[in-house]
Amino acid sequence: MIKFKIKKPDGKIHQNIYNKINNLAKPKGSLGMLEELALQIGDIQQTLEPELKNPYNVLLGADHGIADEGVSFSPKEVTWQQMFSFIRGTSGINFLCRQYNFKLLVVDSGVDYDFPKDLGILDMKVAHGTKNFLYEAAMTKKEFDLAIERGAKVLEDINTKGCNIVSFGEMGIGNTSPSAMWMHYFANIPLEYCVGAGSGLNNSGVSKKLDILRSSKKNYEDNMNSHFVGQEDIIEKIRYFGGFEMVMALGGMLKAAELHMVVIVDGFIMSACMLAASKLYPEVIKYAVFGHQGDEAGHKLLLNAMLAKPILHLGLRLGEGTGAVCAYPIIDSAVRMIREMGSFDSAAITKYY
Amino acid sequence: MIKFKIKKPDGKIHQNIYNKINNLAKPKGSLGMLEELALQIGDIQQTLEPELKNPYNVLLGADHGIADEGVSFSPKEVTWQQMFSFIRGTSGINFLCRQYNFKLLVVDSGVDYDFPKDLGILDMKVAHGTKNFLYEAAMTKKEFDLAIERGAKVLEDINTKGCNIVSFGEMGIGNTSPSAMWMHYFANIPLEYCVGAGSGLNNSGVSKKLDILRSSKKNYEDNMNSHFVGQEDIIEKIRYFGGFEMVMALGGMLKAAELHMVVIVDGFIMSACMLAASKLYPEVIKYAVFGHQGDEAGHKLLLNAMLAKPILHLGLRLGEGTGAVCAYPIIDSAVRMIREMGSFDSAAITKYY
Repeated sequence: MIKFKIKKPDGKIHQNIYNKINNLAKPKGSLGMLEELALQIGDIQQTLEPELKNPYNVLLGADHGIADEGVSFSPKEVTWQQMFSFIRGTSGINFLCRQYNFKLLVVDSGVDYDFPKDLGILDMKVAHGTKNFLYEAAMTKKEFDLAIERGAKVLEDINTKGCNIVSFGEMGIGNTSPSAMWMHYFANIPLEYCVGAGSGLNNSGVSKKLDILRSSKKNYEDNMNSHFVGQEDIIEKIRYFGGFEMVMALGGMLKAAELHMVVIVDGFIMSACMLAASKLYPEVIKYAVFGHQGDEAGHKLLLNAMLAKPILHLGLRLGEGTGAVCAYPIIDSAVRMIREMGSFDSAAITKYY
Repeated sequence: MIKFKIKKPDGKIHQNIYNKINNLAKPKGSLGMLEELALQIGDIQQTLEPELKNPYNVLLGADHGIADEGVSFSPKEVTWQQMFSFIRGTSGINFLCRQYNFKLLVVDSGVDYDFPKDLGILDMKVAHGTKNFLYEAAMTKKEFDLAIERGAKVLEDINTKGCNIVSFGEMGIGNTSPSAMWMHYFANIPLEYCVGAGSGLNNSGVSKKLDILRSSKKNYEDNMNSHFVGQEDIIEKIRYFGGFEMVMALGGMLKAAELHMVVIVDGFIMSACMLAASKLYPEVIKYAVFGHQGDEAGHKLLLNAMLAKPILHLGLRLGEGTGAVCAYPIIDSAVRMIREMGSFDSAAITKYY
């Protein structure tokens, strides 16, 4: 796996940003989460005048071998059908990207379908879907490395185009299952708390999904190479269960942090990717803003494991980056607050604290 | 008090809106609160193609006699100082209005200060602040009627200018105290649960505030005219404790509902106004979207009393309409969703529910 150089934001400017926020003409703390976000973005950008530039939603699509086990309510062909929809502009993520002037980059990370070359989908296909992790590793080491590199490459490219804030979205029928496996291993949370309804399973569907994931875990642990420890062990688990869109997101998140970009984290699947990324590079979390806490069972526990404080709670469970992009205006407000509000002095308001 | 003609939105179109939302190409319910909001706005506007037009934040300022008792952390002159700030464009509400293209209408409902006439503040001053309700009614019946009429007039005017969605903000040092009194009486919640820190009281400050409100309640009940029942009793309590900005907001909310406008409710104080409005005209609630649940003790109980489901929880406690305007992009998303998303048929996605 390629290396990333991720630094914790330098603490030198932190106190100055904090003081600036506390001198804005309002009761201390009265703009709540806007104040916390302004402080974080100021830290990331190392400035008292943060700016959000050229936001992108990187929408990664891929298929999952585990979907063959019936772990999802939705049929597998929905993955490629939705990729067409993103290009046509009729999906959930499209109206949100239009609303906030996000560029939408639709990436084929590993969909089991051959798209026409001129469609507008960025071809980064690692393979036609992963293998079924009930029986074998989802991807080879070479495929894992390739997915990380391609994720990093995409981020480098959009950063070159002036983007300093990015959200990652996903489309991949079955991908709550690998996310649940990562969450289980990387947050040390029992599997039954990591498994939920995804796009619409009923109770018996969830129960069957849990059985399949338990069997997958058993098969993996019975056959795993016990030589792996530390980071090698983490990488091994990432590649054994992960999807191509998830590993590409992970590589993209790490590169974004290296480039001092703000990463808006979407729902359950992208939270699992940030968790996995933070097991490799703990500092990446400092660059993460958590957009939305959804209803998927376990998402709250997953966020808690990262001490994350999500901006929104709107009951979304669509993926595609919708929860991240919906949170963008709040982040934008935070930046406007610190840039545009008057201080007690300049506004001639009696300072009352 | 003038009469309002507020109708519950006609239920005839409701099922068609619901069906349209469920045929959008996404798992049923997966856009959570966006779906609920789209249904409500469709109901209010009686259309499958709702639109938000020319949003206004009506920012009402007034002073309160009860502030003389030291119920607020902030000195009283902050009310008029902030009014200047709103006009200068340096306050919290200003950057939010710029962000979402809200027109900001700054209204003097009853500030204890004489503003220059050419400043840009709409002069609707009922009096130079209310009387101190610890000892006497905050306003006369005539003043109450005038405040209701002026609130209605402002709404009529902005509706004529093409506005179909409005938020109300307030600026009035001391106004969590009258709000707590209204909440106590109109939601039947013990006074100790209605009293909070406002702009920054510590525990002993909150305790003193509670004592003063308890004494106010006792003085009122000892001297109240027991002839009042039903609506007359409600109106009597509104005028006895209320502020001019609050009564104007109440009149404005009722007129907005009469005109089939969407009302975005801000924080604690504006929630108390919506509660009072709903005691006079229960149908007004159908036109209300609750923007934000703040940290002010009692706000959650107050919202529960109206079965309200607030959009945001950002820990804001600034007033001015900030919590309402921050929620606007989510309402906008809901409208874009129902207008712009493809259906299962048109998007050629396998319908999977």
